[in-house]
Amino acid sequence: MTDFAAIILAAGKGTRMKSDLHKVLHPIAGRAMLDHLMASVDELAPAHKVVVVGAGREQIEAAVEGRAQTCLQEPQLGTGHAVQQAQSPLGSFDGDVLILYGDVPFVRAATMQAMLDRLNAEDAPAAVVLGFEPEDALQYGRVIADGDGAISKMVEFKDASEEERACRLCNSGLMAARAKDLWALLDRVGNDNAQGEYYLPDIVNIAIQDGRVCAAVTTDDPNEVAGINSRAELAQAEAQWQAFRREEAMAEGATLRAPETVFFSFDTKLGRDVTIDPHVVFGPGVTVDDGVHIKSFSHLEGATLHKGAQAGPYARLRPGAVMKEGSFVGNFVEMKNATLGPGAKASHLTYLGDATVGAGANIGAGTITCNYDGYFKYKTEIGERAFIGSNSSLIAPVKIGKDAIVAAGSAVSRDVGDGDLRMVRGEQIVKPGWADRFHDTMKRKKAAEKKG
Amino acid sequence: MTDFAAIILAAGKGTRMKSDLHKVLHPIAGRAMLDHLMASVDELAPAHKVVVVGAGREQIEAAVEGRAQTCLQEPQLGTGHAVQQAQSPLGSFDGDVLILYGDVPFVRAATMQAMLDRLNAEDAPAAVVLGFEPEDALQYGRVIADGDGAISKMVEFKDASEEERACRLCNSGLMAARAKDLWALLDRVGNDNAQGEYYLPDIVNIAIQDGRVCAAVTTDDPNEVAGINSRAELAQAEAQWQAFRREEAMAEGATLRAPETVFFSFDTKLGRDVTIDPHVVFGPGVTVDDGVHIKSFSHLEGATLHKGAQAGPYARLRPGAVMKEGSFVGNFVEMKNATLGPGAKASHLTYLGDATVGAGANIGAGTITCNYDGYFKYKTEIGERAFIGSNSSLIAPVKIGKDAIVAAGSAVSRDVGDGDLRMVRGEQIVKPGWADRFHDTMKRKKAAEKKG
Amino acid sequence: MTDFAAIILAAGKGTRMKSDLHKVLHPIAGRAMLDHLMASVDELAPAHKVVVVGAGREQIEAAVEGRAQTCLQEPQLGTGHAVQQAQSPLGSFDGDVLILYGDVPFVRAATMQAMLDRLNAEDAPAAVVLGFEPEDALQYGRVIADGDGAISKMVEFKDASEEERACRLCNSGLMAARAKDLWALLDRVGNDNAQGEYYLPDIVNIAIQDGRVCAAVTTDDPNEVAGINSRAELAQAEAQWQAFRREEAMAEGATLRAPETVFFSFDTKLGRDVTIDPHVVFGPGVTVDDGVHIKSFSHLEGATLHKGAQAGPYARLRPGAVMKEGSFVGNFVEMKNATLGPGAKASHLTYLGDATVGAGANIGAGTITCNYDGYFKYKTEIGERAFIGSNSSLIAPVKIGKDAIVAAGSAVSRDVGDGDLRMVRGEQIVKPGWADRFHDTMKRKKAAEKKG
Repeated sequence: MTDFAAIILAAGKGTRMKSDLHKVLHPIAGRAMLDHLMASVDELAPAHKVVVVGAGREQIEAAVEGRAQTCLQEPQLGTGHAVQQAQSPLGSFDGDVLILYGDVPFVRAATMQAMLDRLNAEDAPAAVVLGFEPEDALQYGRVIADGDGAISKMVEFKDASEEERACRLCNSGLMAARAKDLWALLDRVGNDNAQGEYYLPDIVNIAIQDGRVCAAVTTDDPNEVAGINSRAELAQAEAQWQAFRREEAMAEGATLRAPETVFFSFDTKLGRDVTIDPHVVFGPGVTVDDGVHIKSFSHLEGATLHKGAQAGPYARLRPGAVMKEGSFVGNFVEMKNATLGPGAKASHLTYLGDATVGAGANIGAGTITCNYDGYFKYKTEIGERAFIGSNSSLIAPVKIGKDAIVAAGSAVSRDVGDGDLRMVRGEQIVKPGWADRFHDTMKRKKAAEKKG
Repeated sequence: MTDFAAIILAAGKGTRMKSDLHKVLHPIAGRAMLDHLMASVDELAPAHKVVVVGAGREQIEAAVEGRAQTCLQEPQLGTGHAVQQAQSPLGSFDGDVLILYGDVPFVRAATMQAMLDRLNAEDAPAAVVLGFEPEDALQYGRVIADGDGAISKMVEFKDASEEERACRLCNSGLMAARAKDLWALLDRVGNDNAQGEYYLPDIVNIAIQDGRVCAAVTTDDPNEVAGINSRAELAQAEAQWQAFRREEAMAEGATLRAPETVFFSFDTKLGRDVTIDPHVVFGPGVTVDDGVHIKSFSHLEGATLHKGAQAGPYARLRPGAVMKEGSFVGNFVEMKNATLGPGAKASHLTYLGDATVGAGANIGAGTITCNYDGYFKYKTEIGERAFIGSNSSLIAPVKIGKDAIVAAGSAVSRDVGDGDLRMVRGEQIVKPGWADRFHDTMKRKKAAEKKG
Repeated sequence: MTDFAAIILAAGKGTRMKSDLHKVLHPIAGRAMLDHLMASVDELAPAHKVVVVGAGREQIEAAVEGRAQTCLQEPQLGTGHAVQQAQSPLGSFDGDVLILYGDVPFVRAATMQAMLDRLNAEDAPAAVVLGFEPEDALQYGRVIADGDGAISKMVEFKDASEEERACRLCNSGLMAARAKDLWALLDRVGNDNAQGEYYLPDIVNIAIQDGRVCAAVTTDDPNEVAGINSRAELAQAEAQWQAFRREEAMAEGATLRAPETVFFSFDTKLGRDVTIDPHVVFGPGVTVDDGVHIKSFSHLEGATLHKGAQAGPYARLRPGAVMKEGSFVGNFVEMKNATLGPGAKASHLTYLGDATVGAGANIGAGTITCNYDGYFKYKTEIGERAFIGSNSSLIAPVKIGKDAIVAAGSAVSRDVGDGDLRMVRGEQIVKPGWADRFHDTMKRKKAAEKKG
C-alpha cells in the first residue's frame, strides 16, 4: 500500500450547535468527535494528517497539537477551496489523499481502507467517492453510477433531473485521490454558482470530462457517514454509539439488566461475567475485570476493578481508584487516587483520597481521609486487616498499622502502630434532665412565635 | 377582542386514576394538570375563570383559591349540565365563553385564541368547536363539516352512519360561544338518551336547526387535546412533555448526553452551553446559567446555578441553593437555603443548610452544618477563603472568619475570627497491643459461637 | 384433574451466554429464570418436578435442593434423550407429564393448564404440543395442523416443503403426554439424522403413524415461549417483564413519572397512591404501603415502607429496613436492619444499622450507628422524640432515652437517660492569627514548588 495523507475539514463554524466550543470538539462517549475520527484514521497509519481550520481555530490547534498539522482556510470559499489549503502543508507529498470531515466522526477505518484500495485498483481512478444509500435520500447530492460503481456524474439535488433524483446513491462528501491528481483537478474547479463557492465534487465531473475513471465505494452502514450539526444530532450519535457498545458488551459476556440506562465511555474495558445493574455511568479510563458486580447509580472514571470486586450502589470511583480482588465499595463512598486491598471493605459514606488500604481492612461508615490542607495533598496508609471505626477522620500524612484499630469518631493525626488501638475522645458531659428543660423552653418559645 | 370567560370542567371523579387525589391535580413535569391549563388560559387574560367542581371539590377549591371561581355541579347530569352551572357565577357577563376540560391540560393558548377569533369572525357563528384528526379516530364523536369548517352535524360515534364514521374530524369537546347564545342554547338541550344526560355538543345541532352557522377549528396537533384518565395516560403525557422540552433545550444550545434520562420541571431555565450528563432530575424553580455542567445523578430543585458552576455527580440542591460563578459541588453534597460563593468548593459528603460560604472557601469532606435544634433553624456564615477541615460540625449560629481554618474533625460552636485557627480535639489515647489482644479475644469468641 | 409431573430440561451449556453461571440461573427481575418457571409450575401443584441437568449440574442441584428432583443427562444426545432420563426418577408415576425448558421461563400457569386440559379431553391425544405464531416464523420447526389443532405432522424447518414453511404455527418445544405413552413413544425414537440426536418432536410423528390423535394448543402470546440464549435476549426478557409490571403498577393506582426508569423486583408489592419518581431501583422483598412517596435515585431491597412514608432522593434501604407511618428518610441515608418509628426523620448522610428509632425522633445529618466491631453486630436503641445532633457516632450497644439529646459531633458509647443531654466535647483550642501565618507559609511553598 502506498503512503496516504488524511485531510480533515473542520473550518465550519457549526452555528447550529449554538456553542462557544467548536463543533468537532463536542464529545461523544467522552471523546471529541475529531478524536473519534483521528483514532480511526490512525489505525491505517497515515503519513500525514492535516486539519483545515477556520472559525475557532485556536481550540482545534490546541486540541490536535503534536498529533496533526493544521492549516487555515480564510475566507471560506467552499469545500474545494478548503481542501486546497492543505496543499501547502503537504508540500511534495505524492501519495494518496483521503478527504474527511471533522463532523462526520464515525467513518470506520475499514471504509477508509476500502476507498484507498479502490483508488489503487488496476483501473487507477482519478477519484474515489464514498456513497451511501439512506432510507430517505432527501436532498443529498447524488452519485450517478453504474452497478460496478463507475461514476458518470456528480449532481447537487437542486440541479438533478427527476431521473437523477430517483437514484438512491448519495454523496457522503468523503473522497480519495492521488495528491497529484487532486491538486491539478482542484485548480480547474470554478465558482460560477449561486453561492460563489468552489465545490469539491466538481473534481469528479472534471476528471470524467477528461475521460478518467472515477469510482464510487458504497458503505453498507449509512450511519457511519451521518454528519453532526446540532445538539440533537449529537445526542442521536451518542445514542447510536451507546446502543452499539451495549450490544457488544452483552455479546462478550456482560449482564446489563437495563442496557438502555448504562452509559459507557469510548475506552471502557469489560471482562466476562461482569454484571452491571441499571443506571450506571462510565467516564474515561475504566477497566473492569471478570466477575465484577457494579450496582445501580454508580459512577466510575479512571478506575480499575479487579476480579470479583463489588461496587455500589452509589459507588463513586474517580481517577486512580483501584479495587483489588474481592474488595467492596458500598453506598455513598468515593475513592480518588486510592487503592483498596484484596477483600478490603469501605461500605458506607466514606471518602478515600490519596490512600492505600491493606488487604482485609475494614473502613467504617463515615470515615474521611483528610488529604488536603488547601495547598497540598497528603497520603494515608492503612495496614492489612486494620479496623477504622466509624466517623473517623484520618488526617494525612498518617499511617495506620496492620491489625490496628482506630476507635469510632476519632480524628487521628499521628501514626498508629501495628496491633495498637488509638482512640481520640472528648470529655463526656452528662446533664441529667437538661433535655427535658430544653424541650419545655423551646416549646414555649415556638408557641409564642406562632401567637406573635 | 371582546372579553372572554373560561369555564373549566373538573367535576368528574377520575375513578380510573384509582387515587384519593383529584384527577386534575395530578402533576405533570411538577405542575398540576389544572395549573398547566390555567397558565395557558392566563396568557389570554380572561375576564373570568370558573372551575366546575363535583367529587373532590374541596381539593380543587383549595388549589384554585384566589385564582378562579368555582361552582358546584351536583348531581352530575352531563357536560351540558356542567357548563350550565357556571351561568350563575358568571352573572351578567355577556362576552365570549371558552369551555375547557381540567383533564385536557395541554391545549395551547394559540389554539384557544384561534377558537375565539373564529367566534368573532364576520359570519358570527353560534358556536365554535375544536376538532382534531387523530391517527385512529376510534370511537370519538364526529364533527361533520365541510372543507371550510362549516358544521352540518355533531354526532356520537354510536349514532353515526358508516359515512359519518368515515369522517376523520373528531370532537375534542372544547367549544366557544357567546354567553347569551350559550345559556339560551343550553336551556333547550334535552336528556332524552340512554344515559339521561344533557350533552354539550347538542347545542351545536340545535343552533344549526335554527339556521345559525357553527364552525369547526381544527388543531394541527392531536396531542394537545389528549385527555388524561389513567396513570398510564399521565405517564404518556409526562413523556411527551419531557420529549418536547428536551428537544427545545438542545435546540437552544444545551448538551444532553442522554436526553431520555433527564427530567425537567415545567419551569426549568437553562442557559447556553450548559452540559447535562445522563440521569439528572429537575424539580421546580431551577435556573441554570451559561456554561454550567451538571453531572450524573444530580437532583435539583429551587436552585440557582451561576455561570460556569459545576455540580455533581450526586449533587442534591434543594430550595434556596445558590451556586455562584465557578463554584463547585461534588458528590453526596446537599445544599438547602445556602449560598456557595464564587469559586468556593464543597466536594464531598457535605450538608450545607442555612449557610453562606464566601468566595474561594473550601469545605472539607464530611462537613455538616448543624442548623437545627429540633425547634428552630440557625445560620452558618463562612468567610472568604476559609478552610473547613474534613468531618467538622459547624454548630449554628456560628461565624467562621475570612481565611480562618477549622481543623479536621472539630465540632465548632463558637465564632472563629478572621485568619484564626480553631481546633477541637479530644484526648489522644494510645493502647499499645490492645488491638492485637482484642482480635485474639474476638476470634476465640467467634469460633466458640460457631461451634456452639 | 389427574396428577402431573413436570420435567424441566436444563442440561444445555448455554455457551452463548459466555458465563460461568448456568444459563437457567441467570436472574430476571431479581429471580433466576428457573425459579420463574418453577413458580408458575407450582401454581398447578405438580406431583413431581424433575430437572434434567448436565453441564454445570452442581449449580442447579444446589439451586433446586429440596424443591425438585434432578437427574443427569450424560452424554447429551438430544431432547428426546433428555426427557428419557427422567423416567427413572419418576418411577411408576403414571399421570400426565409436562415437558418444559429452563431457558423458556415465562410460560404462564394458564398455558400449562390448557395443555394438560387438552391432554385429558375426550379424544385422548397421545401428545399435546404448544404452538405459537411469531410475527416472523424464521427457521422454527413447524406444527402442521388443521384449524382445530389436530396435528398431521411435525417438521424441522430444514426438512420442510415450501407449503409447510408457509404454515405459521411453530413448535415451542413444550409438550404434554401421559407417562405411559411418553416412555413407550420415546423408546421408538431413532437418531438417524445429521446430528445423531434423539428428537422429542419425533414422538408426535410416531404416534400419528400409529393412528393416534396429537393436538396443538396455541398460545396467544408468542413472548411467553421465547427462549433465552444470550445476554441480549436476557436483557430483552427483563425489559418485557419490567414493561408489563410497570403497566400493572400504574393500573393499580401508582404514579410512575417515568416508568421506563423504574426497575421492579419479581416480588415488589405496591399500595395505592404510591408515587415513584424517575430513576428508582427495587431489589427483592420490598413492600410499599398506600401514599408512600419514593423519590429519585432511591434503591430499596428487603424494605417495608408504611403508610405515608417518604424516602429519598438517594434513599438506600437495605434488608430489614422498616419505615413506619409518616417517617422520612432523606438523601444519602442508608438503613439496614433498622426501624424508623412513626414520624421519625433521618434526613441526610446517615447510616442506621441494627437500630430502632422511636416515634418522632430526629436523627441529625451525618449520624452514624457504629454497629460493627469487625466481629459482631450490636444494637442501637433510640427513644421517642430523641434528638441526635449532627455528625454523632452512636457506638453500639447503646441506648438513647426518650426526649434525650445528643449534642452535635459526639461519639456516644454509654447509654443516655430519658430527657438527659449528653455531650462529648474535646478541648477548644484557638490560635489567633495561626491561619494567616499558615497561608503565608504555604503560599510561599507552593510558589517555590512551581518555580523549582
